[in-house]
Amino acid sequence: MASFFRLMLLSGIGYLVSTGLLAQPVKRPRAYGIHLGVLPPGPLNAITDVPGVRVGQVTIQEGKAIRTGVTAIIPHAKNQFQQKSPAAIYIGNGFGKLMGYSQVEELGTLETPIVLTNTLSVPTVADALIDYTLRQPGNEQVRSVNALVGETNDGFLNDIRGRHVTKQHVLDALEQAQSGPVREGNVGAGTGTVCFGFKGGIGTSSRKLPASLGGYTVGVLVQTNFGGVLQIAGVPIGEKLGQYAYRDKLDGSCMMVVLTDAPLDARNLKRLAKRAFMGLAKTGGIASNGSGDYVVAVSTAYQLPHETRSSFDENKVLRNDDVSSLFMAAIEATEEAIVNSLFAADTMTGDQGHTVEKLPVDKVLNWLKQAGQIR
Amino acid sequence: MASFFRLMLLSGIGYLVSTGLLAQPVKRPRAYGIHLGVLPPGPLNAITDVPGVRVGQVTIQEGKAIRTGVTAIIPHAKNQFQQKSPAAIYIGNGFGKLMGYSQVEELGTLETPIVLTNTLSVPTVADALIDYTLRQPGNEQVRSVNALVGETNDGFLNDIRGRHVTKQHVLDALEQAQSGPVREGNVGAGTGTVCFGFKGGIGTSSRKLPASLGGYTVGVLVQTNFGGVLQIAGVPIGEKLGQYAYRDKLDGSCMMVVLTDAPLDARNLKRLAKRAFMGLAKTGGIASNGSGDYVVAVSTAYQLPHETRSSFDENKVLRNDDVSSLFMAAIEATEEAIVNSLFAADTMTGDQGHTVEKLPVDKVLNWLKQAGQIR
Amino acid sequence: MASFFRLMLLSGIGYLVSTGLLAQPVKRPRAYGIHLGVLPPGPLNAITDVPGVRVGQVTIQEGKAIRTGVTAIIPHAKNQFQQKSPAAIYIGNGFGKLMGYSQVEELGTLETPIVLTNTLSVPTVADALIDYTLRQPGNEQVRSVNALVGETNDGFLNDIRGRHVTKQHVLDALEQAQSGPVREGNVGAGTGTVCFGFKGGIGTSSRKLPASLGGYTVGVLVQTNFGGVLQIAGVPIGEKLGQYAYRDKLDGSCMMVVLTDAPLDARNLKRLAKRAFMGLAKTGGIASNGSGDYVVAVSTAYQLPHETRSSFDENKVLRNDDVSSLFMAAIEATEEAIVNSLFAADTMTGDQGHTVEKLPVDKVLNWLKQAGQIR
Amino acid sequence: MASFFRLMLLSGIGYLVSTGLLAQPVKRPRAYGIHLGVLPPGPLNAITDVPGVRVGQVTIQEGKAIRTGVTAIIPHAKNQFQQKSPAAIYIGNGFGKLMGYSQVEELGTLETPIVLTNTLSVPTVADALIDYTLRQPGNEQVRSVNALVGETNDGFLNDIRGRHVTKQHVLDALEQAQSGPVREGNVGAGTGTVCFGFKGGIGTSSRKLPASLGGYTVGVLVQTNFGGVLQIAGVPIGEKLGQYAYRDKLDGSCMMVVLTDAPLDARNLKRLAKRAFMGLAKTGGIASNGSGDYVVAVSTAYQLPHETRSSFDENKVLRNDDVSSLFMAAIEATEEAIVNSLFAADTMTGDQGHTVEKLPVDKVLNWLKQAGQIR
Repeated sequence: MASFFRLMLLSGIGYLVSTGLLAQPVKRPRAYGIHLGVLPPGPLNAITDVPGVRVGQVTIQEGKAIRTGVTAIIPHAKNQFQQKSPAAIYIGNGFGKLMGYSQVEELGTLETPIVLTNTLSVPTVADALIDYTLRQPGNEQVRSVNALVGETNDGFLNDIRGRHVTKQHVLDALEQAQSGPVREGNVGAGTGTVCFGFKGGIGTSSRKLPASLGGYTVGVLVQTNFGGVLQIAGVPIGEKLGQYAYRDKLDGSCMMVVLTDAPLDARNLKRLAKRAFMGLAKTGGIASNGSGDYVVAVSTAYQLPHETRSSFDENKVLRNDDVSSLFMAAIEATEEAIVNSLFAADTMTGDQGHTVEKLPVDKVLNWLKQAGQIR
Repeated sequence: MASFFRLMLLSGIGYLVSTGLLAQPVKRPRAYGIHLGVLPPGPLNAITDVPGVRVGQVTIQEGKAIRTGVTAIIPHAKNQFQQKSPAAIYIGNGFGKLMGYSQVEELGTLETPIVLTNTLSVPTVADALIDYTLRQPGNEQVRSVNALVGETNDGFLNDIRGRHVTKQHVLDALEQAQSGPVREGNVGAGTGTVCFGFKGGIGTSSRKLPASLGGYTVGVLVQTNFGGVLQIAGVPIGEKLGQYAYRDKLDGSCMMVVLTDAPLDARNLKRLAKRAFMGLAKTGGIASNGSGDYVVAVSTAYQLPHETRSSFDENKVLRNDDVSSLFMAAIEATEEAIVNSLFAADTMTGDQGHTVEKLPVDKVLNWLKQAGQIR
Repeated sequence: MASFFRLMLLSGIGYLVSTGLLAQPVKRPRAYGIHLGVLPPGPLNAITDVPGVRVGQVTIQEGKAIRTGVTAIIPHAKNQFQQKSPAAIYIGNGFGKLMGYSQVEELGTLETPIVLTNTLSVPTVADALIDYTLRQPGNEQVRSVNALVGETNDGFLNDIRGRHVTKQHVLDALEQAQSGPVREGNVGAGTGTVCFGFKGGIGTSSRKLPASLGGYTVGVLVQTNFGGVLQIAGVPIGEKLGQYAYRDKLDGSCMMVVLTDAPLDARNLKRLAKRAFMGLAKTGGIASNGSGDYVVAVSTAYQLPHETRSSFDENKVLRNDDVSSLFMAAIEATEEAIVNSLFAADTMTGDQGHTVEKLPVDKVLNWLKQAGQIR
Repeated sequence: MASFFRLMLLSGIGYLVSTGLLAQPVKRPRAYGIHLGVLPPGPLNAITDVPGVRVGQVTIQEGKAIRTGVTAIIPHAKNQFQQKSPAAIYIGNGFGKLMGYSQVEELGTLETPIVLTNTLSVPTVADALIDYTLRQPGNEQVRSVNALVGETNDGFLNDIRGRHVTKQHVLDALEQAQSGPVREGNVGAGTGTVCFGFKGGIGTSSRKLPASLGGYTVGVLVQTNFGGVLQIAGVPIGEKLGQYAYRDKLDGSCMMVVLTDAPLDARNLKRLAKRAFMGLAKTGGIASNGSGDYVVAVSTAYQLPHETRSSFDENKVLRNDDVSSLFMAAIEATEEAIVNSLFAADTMTGDQGHTVEKLPVDKVLNWLKQAGQIR
């Protein structure tokens, strides 16, 4: 099954999955001949191209008003608390409720998986992450956990005030996390999100540097819920559609998660994170006042043990001089992940009868063709 | 009753209250003749000297292992979400789980009360603050809430893994919040904390500037749970006692909340917050690696409405040139609030039979007398 | 003469000026029908569309090796030290030598004009700005000056080690500063810069919000000296030309100066500054390791007096909720200013016989036409 | 001669040197039996206890009005540009003109010596540091230099507007830099400074951790020019003297330089730098609005080469868990360095006939004796 998925993905075809059921296969932008940037993607064109990275998603879609979910990203297979990952967070625009910022900033490490959800469910998710960590074998003495939870506000389509995410949803997402292709669109934490006035959702992409530049992979996963004037491959879609007023009254946001197997320390991971924000800019995002735009960047190249007899860390990390191509990779993968989320998302009707249309893919493709951006 | 308390406080006598019952009256340091700094305190020598500020605390002390609680600070009597307070957060050392940082930093406003608790109960408290906000009349359309929750780790005396704080505890603390004297020591979020190896807890203090400097009040409340080499009024108590090894394996922290009626904008509130950290330094705190030291600073002088027809804020704020005496006030009040927490706290036995002794007040007073620091 | 310039500019024609002599008129991108973004520019499409803003430039081009200069931006006509402007600086990538950062960050004010130059001439320029300030009538008692100097490294075309900028050059630029059209390309601090492998330089642009959004103007001036994969109006020029390896061994940079008559305080100016960096991203810039990318943002709507009898600032500033359209304006104007710099710059041969070709405008126009980006 | 000095220092006696001539020997506080903190100093109780660190100072004292100078700190004997030191800068209060901040922050490295001077001479000193770097053998191709220059404002005693520091003064200080004892008081960049209303100046101190904690040395050098309510060993000197109004109209500042042979990366050096600011707090400094308080922290344990064939840095650095005792060392050494500067400084008359008295050492000693702080 996994290899089937892999095959499908390689040929540019993914699956849109909603509440656990397989839906129509959805062609990803790259399968249409849309190429963003100059670096090649990894085999899955997904965050899971970074070896060891797993993603788990639970989509919560019930009745007429519940449209939300949970997306979990697990950097490596070991106990994350005992084997902390070098990490950093960049805040593009801080009108958001991401939890876990200051400890990552201070210590440069990540000690839980990263879980995304809706704005008002952050506490529930954090509590579940604490459960998950305390129960993990080897963590019996742990009395402090820095849960990393990101969010965007899906309150236009989802009955967000009802806080329908439960701790079990989070534990399910963590348990089901796997490598391989990643579902995009109306799934997990992206179930009810809105992006550039179209249905947004989860998107993912990756870049693989040539061997001469180290051969590293940079993978990105986004939860798209923001506004601006949409551009795809530089073509001003939003302008052509006359749809570029950001939606004032929604507290939009974009969560971006960047994983890499390049050996970066926290300082250079923070610089890498900032480049993802540049990728967002290239899609026409403006980081409006109400947007909470955060990037979490993590390296899987090494871990920093929670306890050890040594007083020292001795890690081989990339020099400042050698990070620029990773920067480019993060920009490209973020831009593509956002576009992927829009292509994969489907029209949705939710809370209070609100409907958000999906991106008019045919029109978009036509414009891109005219602009020479389909190859 | 309130006026009785006020009277007692004015004469330097407070009450140590544990799980709701009145205990022995406890003399505060100032009543012993200990004077920290050169500025006078307000009438209560408490954060509640800032007009309108209310404090509510719930102490959770059950069986042999539960020693924790909740301390809530409410800046003003209006709906906090609709009438946001100018605010800022300074991170002294970020090894902590304070929630709500980035939005305060980005927008310069506080939209919920500030609630302190233990490390692993932050999500529960945040969830309760969301409940509280969503239910408040006038907030029916609110779909985004930036709950501000601070914490320190009481896991040495408290069964912190059990997460015994409930949402009801938080709602109770908020409901019971009142102006007037503030209980110190083993109370609320300070129930199970440890400071300089002695029993820590909640402490509070204030300073009132002379009319020539604006007559403003700066009030501070602290949750003390950190280490270093204790100094009181400059006298090296920790050194004299040979007790200055910080406790490595506890994730200590100090939460500091600074309220003022001086009209400061967010930028100058951030500067004010940083000065509280300087007050911590004067007690001998070293902000060790494992310490999460945060300061939240809030002005009550004006509010920024959530919604309004105007596109403008028009507030009269203090010029940069006029903030230095407030800086001094924040330093002094923080130092004294920390010392107050130590004097008020009582010996406690808790989880796993751990006992933490209270500060040996008689010895301390003797040393201070010898040093000429009792007046 | 000024009105002649104005006329020319309005019709989309500017002048490339080198060492003081008028050269061929150069059509600006907008005159070719290239439209970036959705907001209209001001009448000059220049930073000087912000009322009161003046720009002065001195181009230093001597012999075979000297290719450098100075560009000064003066926010208002009053004594800048006595009437400080609200200001902020955003650091996109800090590999640069901008001087004056921390005081602007701490106090939120600008007290000198902003002057751009080459990397190794920053001290000379700062010294000249101190001269300028100390000598200004009314500043007889001034003993502290926070000179704001930005730079990029023109060391590929310019004998930068020779430090050929003198204090007189700076004083000349300040004295000659004027409103009206701004020279672009190989001029002032952009004389010897390189951008995306082509000749870079000075560029400028502006946006004017509709009256319904306040009618404010945002003006941007850039000194372009950075790399990445050039995109113009979204068309991947760099990719088409196969010219996208950034030049490792040059310490590139991009200085961006944003002026606005919108009444923003320092906090929102910092947010505005960050959006200029998003505009850089849209041109294909990647903020490589060696790039020093800084944005200085200043409001001309009000000033903060150095001395006054009042203890208060009382300024009407835009609410957070009303800044997003300014963010969009800053993004668009920065993108266009960068593109303008490339169109205006001319092929240059300099130090060690190095030659940098100008952007192949005809090819670019052709590609843009094919992509439907010429209107 | 050097060993003579060493002997004198060990016995707690240093030399106050003014304009190059040896003056009366000055007893340092420790020689009087004043002990700050609990950790022992290194043999010289100076920044030069960190192996390889050299200090060079030029005192410029001419006529009635010139009272200024230059203090240079050189971290190691190699070419600093080619062998960059891991470094960080903490900004306590940013009302100052320190130059070189953003590159250190971005890259985590120091590429020039650190030179301190007066506020308006920063550009001259930076220019001299560029000269020094460009001329150094091996730097023939260098075209970008991030000069690190700190300052405080000596404009009360010094004709600061005259800018009497020349490039030659700086080059002399660098050339004469040596290990061994460091002159304190009215010397170098501290010639004309004022601290707590008394004559301030240069001060230095160090701490040496016991072997069980790694045996590392932390050395601090300060340039003291700030205000507050002076405390020495916790004794409220300023209050006793009724001298605690900070001097509003002077732009005071404190520059702190922390060197250590502990192997810290830039992230932990930033944390270490912040602790020096806590040491300042313990002397009664309040970081008033007009104060520019900066800490530069540098490790000498390893270098990061400017050029190398490897893409990697592979350095053994201390884990987060092992930095707290260094934090304590930085706090203690900074407090003592400040006090040392006050003891060493002598009454000075300067510009406009202004006189600043030296600390009344006899009174101070008497009070400390009464407080039991003389051992």
